Amino acid sequence: MRVHEKHLRPTSSGASGQGKVASDQQGLNGAESLVRSLAAAGVDTYFANPGTTEMQLVAALDRIEGLRPVLCLFEGVATGAADGYARMTGRPAATLLHLGPGLANGLANLHNARRARSSIVNIVGDHATYHRSLDAPLTSDIEGIARPVSTFVRTVQDVGAAGHDAVRAVAAARSAPGVATLILPADLAWSSGAAVANPSQPVAPRDVDPERIAATAAALRNAVHPALLMSGTVLRRDSLTVASRIAAATGARLYCDFFSPRLERGIGLVPVRRLPYSSEQVTEELHGTDVLVLIETDPPVAFFAYPGKPSELAPPQTRLVRLAGPSENGSAALAALADLMGARAAAVRQSAGKSELPKGALTPALAGAVIAALLPESAIVVDEAVTSGMAVGPLCQAAAPHVWLSHTGGALGLGLPMSVGAAIACPERKTLCLVGDGSAMYTPQALWTQAREGLNVVTIVFSNRAYAILNYELQRIAASGGPAARSMLDLTRPEIKFTDLARGMGVEASRVDTAEAFAVELRAALAAPGPRLIELALG
Amino acid sequence: MRVHEKHLRPTSSGASGQGKVASDQQGLNGAESLVRSLAAAGVDTYFANPGTTEMQLVAALDRIEGLRPVLCLFEGVATGAADGYARMTGRPAATLLHLGPGLANGLANLHNARRARSSIVNIVGDHATYHRSLDAPLTSDIEGIARPVSTFVRTVQDVGAAGHDAVRAVAAARSAPGVATLILPADLAWSSGAAVANPSQPVAPRDVDPERIAATAAALRNAVHPALLMSGTVLRRDSLTVASRIAAATGARLYCDFFSPRLERGIGLVPVRRLPYSSEQVTEELHGTDVLVLIETDPPVAFFAYPGKPSELAPPQTRLVRLAGPSENGSAALAALADLMGARAAAVRQSAGKSELPKGALTPALAGAVIAALLPESAIVVDEAVTSGMAVGPLCQAAAPHVWLSHTGGALGLGLPMSVGAAIACPERKTLCLVGDGSAMYTPQALWTQAREGLNVVTIVFSNRAYAILNYELQRIAASGGPAARSMLDLTRPEIKFTDLARGMGVEASRVDTAEAFAVELRAALAAPGPRLIELALG
Repeated sequence: MRVHEKHLRPTSSGASGQGKVASDQQGLNGAESLVRSLAAAGVDTYFANPGTTEMQLVAALDRIEGLRPVLCLFEGVATGAADGYARMTGRPAATLLHLGPGLANGLANLHNARRARSSIVNIVGDHATYHRSLDAPLTSDIEGIARPVSTFVRTVQDVGAAGHDAVRAVAAARSAPGVATLILPADLAWSSGAAVANPSQPVAPRDVDPERIAATAAALRNAVHPALLMSGTVLRRDSLTVASRIAAATGARLYCDFFSPRLERGIGLVPVRRLPYSSEQVTEELHGTDVLVLIETDPPVAFFAYPGKPSELAPPQTRLVRLAGPSENGSAALAALADLMGARAAAVRQSAGKSELPKGALTPALAGAVIAALLPESAIVVDEAVTSGMAVGPLCQAAAPHVWLSHTGGALGLGLPMSVGAAIACPERKTLCLVGDGSAMYTPQALWTQAREGLNVVTIVFSNRAYAILNYELQRIAASGGPAARSMLDLTRPEIKFTDLARGMGVEASRVDTAEAFAVELRAALAAPGPRLIELALG
Repeated sequence: MRVHEKHLRPTSSGASGQGKVASDQQGLNGAESLVRSLAAAGVDTYFANPGTTEMQLVAALDRIEGLRPVLCLFEGVATGAADGYARMTGRPAATLLHLGPGLANGLANLHNARRARSSIVNIVGDHATYHRSLDAPLTSDIEGIARPVSTFVRTVQDVGAAGHDAVRAVAAARSAPGVATLILPADLAWSSGAAVANPSQPVAPRDVDPERIAATAAALRNAVHPALLMSGTVLRRDSLTVASRIAAATGARLYCDFFSPRLERGIGLVPVRRLPYSSEQVTEELHGTDVLVLIETDPPVAFFAYPGKPSELAPPQTRLVRLAGPSENGSAALAALADLMGARAAAVRQSAGKSELPKGALTPALAGAVIAALLPESAIVVDEAVTSGMAVGPLCQAAAPHVWLSHTGGALGLGLPMSVGAAIACPERKTLCLVGDGSAMYTPQALWTQAREGLNVVTIVFSNRAYAILNYELQRIAASGGPAARSMLDLTRPEIKFTDLARGMGVEASRVDTAEAFAVELRAALAAPGPRLIELALG
């Protein structure tokens, strides 16, 4: 018990303000050293929701040319945007977050980013080192909050280390690849004596050893009904072309994970079938497959476990052969495999689908047909329309060439933020954000940043006024659907008016309930610069 | 490297579905055992954003009479609501959250709740135990995410323990008091063999030993300019009356922490001065105080550290005397102290302030005068109007008796959610939610739950179109205000239309820019049942 007042007032000088604000004579301050070192390592974009402990970092942004700070009104928007940016550029953006709670608000989308293997560098301010023991209200275990989602966590220990730690964070984010979190205490941000650190090279993904490639080739040669299951970096145009040579030589079907971070697809590209969401459908889809080659992915598992149902989804008779794990160089392994097998035949390319526009009361499938018909070339499609997206995705297979960004971690609230980051990474392209009404409500603040930055994003809200995926899941576990259960799935009381929400945040919006009207609105939205939102009132 | 396929498919039966759904013959399933045990321990309200792993828990809610599930569209709303509920009832509500990412979305408001010493029981579903090693997309270190904010973290280890663990979680949440997090794997939720556990008594706060009370009395008797600094449970009508007897006997001034979770105040109650937010103002306010008695609080410290400024704010000449720490029984200690000192004199009570309504273009002070004049008796005021609230708070001192719920942890996004929980706890009272435009945007989804539940909440948004508190902080650190810095503080591009946001979520709303119009709207809002929002367009 601390009854003596001498315990209440430390006599050391440690508990009162220390350090001096840097001047030119003393070198950079810690904040400027950190920001300049990040810039030297190629980080020029900041998705930010800063507070007082980050003000020196914000001030440093003003002293360096060419940096782009993007204000987000909620930290989950910042981290989801950084994920979208990384998926489209292959480079990390920085986030700028306010102590432990700011990081915590960004954690769910960092979970998704970790699953996508997206490079992100979180910069988190903390209290001054001597202030932490006083347990002021915002004090928390920032490293503890960061650890579950981060591949690298570090708190800068002295001002001279700020730049070096920044460089290490970037290298870690690019090497894993994944989420690096660097914490800068306020006194080290404002103290002087730091310098810019030289960037270091990220570690390249490991090459697959030749024996494994040979073993895979042997397995494929002996297979009757082989298939390739891919994810990660091989779902790009060039690697998919290589995969299609193997398919042509062996009859292998080409699949990608349901949770693939980025898939290049559309007319003229090699078509790849996405594994279904439902466990039973995955097993059915793979029925008869005697060899399943895994490239930058793991064996298919159920999204959730169910009583009495298997969690591992490949049929028991299917032999699983790993060509490359998620952290290995799958593209090089695939190319070596094709060469080894002498697979040189021309690839099957996707031909154009129907271009006529459908009519009638909107369903997810009719909406998908409209989107497929009007999708502009090089579009980026962000898919967080949990149930409706399953109908749209296959229809867009035969659309103009585009990039499809899927959910990776199952934490809702990724779609709208990811569209912000993708559009900032690729301002010349159109981004379509497909989002369910349930998922849109986790991070609606992203619409404001879309408006502020004038981003070319068309947000399409599939409004079925329910957590529809949970209706499906509730049936699966055969649980009773009493009033409590029904109330947890229902979004009708009150109905959410997304057009009002969008306008409230500066985004033009419309609501449609027929395919014809949707086509008119989507065409107009794609023709106009800046963000638009279209709410689809599904029957 | 995992090249051999035998590593890819565990041969143990552990990786396929196990367990049976419970029937009556086999006892309860784990989910029902947990929910019934919580109910037996007095937990009847669930702030929920469940997913598949929580469906058995949701189904269990339907089998028990008298439980109230409240759907929130974002987990930060659920946890902030649970904080408000605990502050008004002294009892824990449960939250129902979806694995690690769902918990993560609620973490910032759990940080605030921890600082408020609010009792909360988080119930978090996890994957089935045998499913976790497969690293499905939603797998994460849930305990690791929970630990920084929780006083109790536990994962149910077998189905028979579910009820007992639930009882332990409630006891921990009530004893600390604080945040308890209980994780229930899906297979233990659906497996049978569990029972209802008997509730256990929470540990009461420690009594202060008589020597400390005597030492405090001696210090006060010798003091020339003493003061009491209070927080926690002593800021209620009865304890404040006791404090005022000491004040009358010794001349002590009465203060509460700036970050006090709950203060009872208004006409007829004992007035208490809230310590200011600004460090310099705290030191100035306490200037000349020779003895500062601490009751359920710690010595005053700066919210943030600043270069060259002290972090500990009591003047060097002030002797700090702790009567009761935050986890001790301050009310009993205060009563014993007053008796020991023979302090029996009648207390000073707050008299009524001006009741006339002001006129003119709205400022925070004019808005405060309107609120003070119209505040209904027994109102609950939630204050997350970061800068504007500082003007409103003192004006309401002389309003009808009310409860003031302040920020405690500094993590923005508490106000709107806390109003949900307070209004559900006290449906017969009016809740006023004062919120800044910046802070309202962290958790705007709370408006939807206000509408769904028909809550008597009037939300008042102080729209100054800036993170105004950061303007103040930027000046303090004398950092440059270049374009990046200015853009991080600015909420004008685009302006947020809170009336549209509110209507989009089913809450009637209006916007005013004069004190006269505000009075008309506030009176109407207070007279009508259900939620309303008034946006104050500040000049």
